[in-house]
Formats: sequence, structure tokens, C-alpha cells
Amino acid sequence: MTKVVGNAVVGQSGGPTGVINQSLVGVIEEVCEHDCIKNLYGAHHGVQGIVNEDFYDLKKLSRRELDEIAMTPSAALGSTRDKPDQEYCSRIFEIFKKHDIRYFFYIGGNDSASTAHIINIMAQEAGYDLKVFHVPKTIDNDLLVTDHCPGYGTAATFVAQAVIGDDLDNRAIPGIKLDIVMGRHAGFLTAASMLARRNEDDGPHLIYIPERPVSKEQICNDVQKVYDRLGRCMVVVSEGISDVDHTPWTKKIQENLDEDAHGNVQLSGTGALADFLSNTLKEELKISRVRADTFGYLQRSFPGLISPVDAAEARYCGRMAVYYAVGPNSAASVGMQRFGKGDRYRIDTFMTTLASVAVKTKSLPDEYINEEGNNILPSFHEYVSPLVGPLPPVRFIPKQ
Amino acid sequence: MTKVVGNAVVGQSGGPTGVINQSLVGVIEEVCEHDCIKNLYGAHHGVQGIVNEDFYDLKKLSRRELDEIAMTPSAALGSTRDKPDQEYCSRIFEIFKKHDIRYFFYIGGNDSASTAHIINIMAQEAGYDLKVFHVPKTIDNDLLVTDHCPGYGTAATFVAQAVIGDDLDNRAIPGIKLDIVMGRHAGFLTAASMLARRNEDDGPHLIYIPERPVSKEQICNDVQKVYDRLGRCMVVVSEGISDVDHTPWTKKIQENLDEDAHGNVQLSGTGALADFLSNTLKEELKISRVRADTFGYLQRSFPGLISPVDAAEARYCGRMAVYYAVGPNSAASVGMQRFGKGDRYRIDTFMTTLASVAVKTKSLPDEYINEEGNNILPSFHEYVSPLVGPLPPVRFIPKQ
Repeated sequence: MTKVVGNAVVGQSGGPTGVINQSLVGVIEEVCEHDCIKNLYGAHHGVQGIVNEDFYDLKKLSRRELDEIAMTPSAALGSTRDKPDQEYCSRIFEIFKKHDIRYFFYIGGNDSASTAHIINIMAQEAGYDLKVFHVPKTIDNDLLVTDHCPGYGTAATFVAQAVIGDDLDNRAIPGIKLDIVMGRHAGFLTAASMLARRNEDDGPHLIYIPERPVSKEQICNDVQKVYDRLGRCMVVVSEGISDVDHTPWTKKIQENLDEDAHGNVQLSGTGALADFLSNTLKEELKISRVRADTFGYLQRSFPGLISPVDAAEARYCGRMAVYYAVGPNSAASVGMQRFGKGDRYRIDTFMTTLASVAVKTKSLPDEYINEEGNNILPSFHEYVSPLVGPLPPVRFIPKQ
Repeated sequence: MTKVVGNAVVGQSGGPTGVINQSLVGVIEEVCEHDCIKNLYGAHHGVQGIVNEDFYDLKKLSRRELDEIAMTPSAALGSTRDKPDQEYCSRIFEIFKKHDIRYFFYIGGNDSASTAHIINIMAQEAGYDLKVFHVPKTIDNDLLVTDHCPGYGTAATFVAQAVIGDDLDNRAIPGIKLDIVMGRHAGFLTAASMLARRNEDDGPHLIYIPERPVSKEQICNDVQKVYDRLGRCMVVVSEGISDVDHTPWTKKIQENLDEDAHGNVQLSGTGALADFLSNTLKEELKISRVRADTFGYLQRSFPGLISPVDAAEARYCGRMAVYYAVGPNSAASVGMQRFGKGDRYRIDTFMTTLASVAVKTKSLPDEYINEEGNNILPSFHEYVSPLVGPLPPVRFIPKQ
């Protein structure tokens, strides 16, 4: 088989992460190693940049620029929330033909894999030689097939570190503290807060995830039990938790608010779940010191807390996408397989079909969730800790 | 004058900070250097621990324990929100006499200085030899007399770093982003977000502080102007901002909500200002992508982002409180004076009366606020940057 020769496009899509630029730089580095790829165009704001022919010439960047871009969080090319349908994908394909694009690298989550999948099928049907490779990216860690996703380890580092600090704060001035963590459908990021437990009685004492519906009553009972034992309680909650009827709590709260709003203030923001839960606990348990925070966007682009393992893996996935693309396969998503535990942890990459990663998402496996559905089991530590950066030690004054 | 000989108590009070344990360890270290101080008792939860006679024996701690406690954020002794009145202070004073306490070190804000002040007067009136020294602590940086306060530099590091990441995120997926920062009366912490501006068009583009009342209309107009120019806008807002009638916006929002609440969901939480402002901007400006986060408690005890200068200064203030206490003065608060700029920045400590620090607070000086009242001037950089830890560099793909 002869090599496919032509130009390449790379784009970034979806919510930014701390290491998505590592993957971008991995793609650029590896492209420079292969003569069959002529120009490398960076699409400004993902698929939007393609249809608008808004491109950077990425081969112009110096070694130093590349290294610094790699260490910068968020998406250097700009990202997009566009989820192209068939017609949008046709427009992309037309641009590809116009510019002799023969390689398409798309760094993103399952929606990006879907876009890549549609375009790949179009190219095949048109008999147009096009290599389409997807590089996984998501702080939610919810892509199918791969062991884990670049971006998750860094977001998990932020969450673990934030909860360590917040638990120390809650020890100093005891009360009930709730932290709302990103994750509408998958509990991986919320579950990572369990890394904050390193000493006896460390929080989080309760962890609620979208995989386990929970009633107001259960949350109140669970918190009361911890509070009775410790005089305080740290609770970490996924933004996507549902009531026992499987309706997301955020939706229920919104419906209540809509009923209450007479053209006056209408609240639907990020703080609604935090406020609702803290008010519920205050009223039901008659405990005055209840505080709640929503970590929000800080979780995904916070600089200075990048997990070194996550950064290296993100870079490697970017490089391997190109390496696979110049080989015989015409399309794939890059997956990671894990070998070894603890200090012997390492990964290797493999190819999986775009279809296998597109559309659907992965949930936190049952094996990591306790029977009551209100906590994460110690076994999850082995899964998540190799992906996370160094966590600062803490020291208490010993009991005397 | 003969040395006062007896036991000592140290306590921590108010909201924890990233470096309040540095001050505690500074006190412990220096106490060990002076034979006139026999036992050193650590009060568990500040004044509560004193009246309950709930003490740690702090001379038992090893060198290694001290070093590790110093690096741990939040208050290792436990903190308290109690603001003792005259009667509470009498009970404290009785305990002091009972345990032959001759030295009292209180690490906290202006309320702690008030407590120390009341107890000092009681001791003087009773003719009881007592040394009362206050060690400044606050992320708000709002204590009078001192140039700045231990704890501020570390919280400012978090805020600056969070806004750097958030601004990168907002560049990747453009829209309007609001971040709510702690500070009910003083804008110092919010103002520190200006350190995130290092490249052309970097956010924050607008900064609102409690020192400058602002109407809804002004915020909308200001944001629209930035949005028209850049297609995005990063806004940082103190939680304590007021309307032009000087009523805090959080109070106005709460009153609106109370009117709307029919025994249903009642919102009063941390997210209310963020939600109110983002909904206002969405409705008034017809811009769909408006997001808001409230940094909340993460600002004050986040581990791993401690400013080295802040840590060293907090330690030094703790040591100097003891050093001053074994000298001729009977009571003071430790202040910091600044010498030199940029790389030549250094501080020295001095004593100021407890009364001069008690009760009242400091506002952000006018010289740092722009005329429109919606931003912080570049001159503030010189004030704040020496106090802040290293900020991660960022690199964009150059315009082509």
C-alpha cells in the first residue's frame, strides 16, 4: 500500500482541559516526522474553523513555542460546542477536498468521535483517501473502550486537592460542607475526591454520584449519622445526581423555581444545587453551619496543578494518533490500556473504531461504589491514584 | 524591669488561611527560645478552648511535626467564630489566672485584636502581669496599620491563578464569564485578579469591588462594551458589591427571593450573586453564553498553592510576637512595613497598639481604582505582586 500524501487538519473540541494542548503538540511533533504530511492546519474553534477556512499554519511554531503551548491549559486552537450533523459534515468534507486534506485529527470527547465517524464514512463513500483519527479528551473520563481519558487526571488532581483544603477548613470550624463537582452522567471526577482521605476521619465522608439516585431523605439521614459521630461532615456531590425517580435534582429544583418566579429574579445557575442541598440540610437537621461550594469551571483549566502523568499521556496519545494515521488504518480513536499497579503503572495505546467511542458514554463501574450508594470504595484508589499529580501532605497536631 | 515568668497560651481565630499555621509554628519556635515562658498551651478552637480549658501541650511537638504543621493550610489548633464580649473575656481572664498564664498570643483578624484588647485592659486594671500580643491574619487584607496581612498573598495567588485558567477557558469558548471572589467590605482579594493580565486582551476585563457601588445598568453597559470589542468578557466581582444606593447586591437579591418564596425552595446561598448577575446579563444583553462561578471556600485553605513570601512572613510575624512579648511592652499587634520594590522588596515588623487594629477595617485605597470604578489600575501590581507566589506562564499560538 502506498502512503497517503497530502495536508492535515487538527482541531480541538468540547470543554477545555489542562492537558488538551499536550495532545495538540503531540500531533504537531509527530506530523513533522512524516514527509507524507505536507501542511498542518490548525482549525480555529474546531469544526467552525474548518467550515470557515480559519486555519493556523502549525508547522511555523518553534520548539520553544510548542513546549510552552503544551504546558498551557485550555484549548490553544480555540474550541467549539458545535455538534455537526450530516449536512455540516458535508461542508467539512468539501473543505477537505478543496485543500487536499488527507489527514484529520480531532481532539475531543464522544461528540468529536461522532463527527470524525460521519466524515470518515463520507470519505469512504466518495472514494476519497482520508485518514481520520480521534484523540480522546475529557475531564469526565466517560469515553468507552479506553482505560481512562487524557484530561481526567488533571481535573481529578484539582478536585482532590480542593477537597483536602476544604476538609481542613471544615476541621477548623466544624459544620456541614458540600462541594458540587462536575459530572452530569458519570461519577469519575466526583469519585476522585476520595483521594483526599488519607488520615482517620478525613473527608469526604459521603460521596454522591449520578450512577446512584438518592432521595433528600437519604442525604439528610446519611449526613446526620456522620455529624453525630464527628460533629462535622464533608459531602461531595456530582452536579448530575438524580432523585430516586431518576429525575436529575437540578431539573426538580428548576421546576420549583419556575413556579416561584413571578417575573422577578429567576435562578438557574451553577449554585442552585448547592443552595438547594444546603438549605434542605439546614432546615431538616436544624444544623446552622451548613456551607456549600460549586467548583465550576475552575476544575477544567486551572493552571499550575497539571498532573505530570496526565500531561505525558495526553502528549503520547496525540503523537500516536499521527503514528497510526501514517500506517495502514484509515480511521480510529486512540485508546489507552493500563499495565501494572502503583509504582509499576504504565500505559500503552491501541486503536479502537470511531463508532465504538462515538455517542455513548461510560459510567463509573459498580465495583467502585458502596452498597448504600453514598460513597466510593477504597478499591477506586488503585484506579485513580496513578493518574493524579502529587497531593500535598497535611499534618495535624496529635491527640494528647 | 524583671522578666515576666509564667505560662503562655496561643490561639487561632476567624476564617482559616493557607499560612496561619506558619504563624502558629513561629510562636512555638520562638517561645522555646525564652526560658521565662514555661508551658505553651494551644487553645483548641481559640477562645472556646480557653474557657473550656481544652489545651494542647505545644512544647511536645517535634521539629519535624512543626515543619509539617506549618506547611498545612487551615488552623491546626481549630478556629472559632466567637467574638467575646466583656463577660466572656472575664471568663478567659479567670482561666489565665488559674493557670498562671502570663503570655497570650492570638492569631486572627480585627475581632481577635478586639478580644486581645479587652483582656489586656482587664489585666491592667487587675494589676495582673499579662503580655497580650496579636498576630495578624486575614485573606481579606483589611487590617489597619500594617502594610498587608499574612494569609492575603496566598489567597491572592489562588485567585490570580484561577482567573488565569478561567480566562484561557473563556478564550477557547468565548462568552461572558463572571467570577465571584470573597470580600464583603474590602476589595483587595478581588483586585489581585488583575495579576492574571499579562498579555494583550487577557482578562479580567472588568473588576468590581465593594469600595465602588455599581448599578445593574452600569455592569450591563460595561460588559457590552468589552463584548463588542473582543467577542468575550471576563468579569471579577467581590461578593460584597453594592448598588448605587449602597445596599449590598446580595441583600437586594435576598429580599427579592424572600418575596418569591412560598415555603418552597428558598435560595440564599453562595451562588445567589453569581446567578443573579449572569441572568441579568443574559436577559439585558441577549447574549446566550454567560457563565458564573463563586470561588467560595477554595480561596482560603487550598493546599499546594502557598505563596512562599506569605508563608515566610506569617512565620516571622509569629516569631516576632513572642520576641516583642518578652521585651518591655505589655501588649501590641504585630505590623509589617515594606521596603523596596520588585526584587528589592522586603519587610520588617513593628508594634502597633491593639486598639489601632481592633474593630475597624481598611478599604482598598483610591489610588488603585480607576475613575469609572470598574477596574483596578496597573499601579496595584507593584503592591500585590511581591506577596504572591509564582504564576504559571501561558503561551498562545501567535496571530498569523
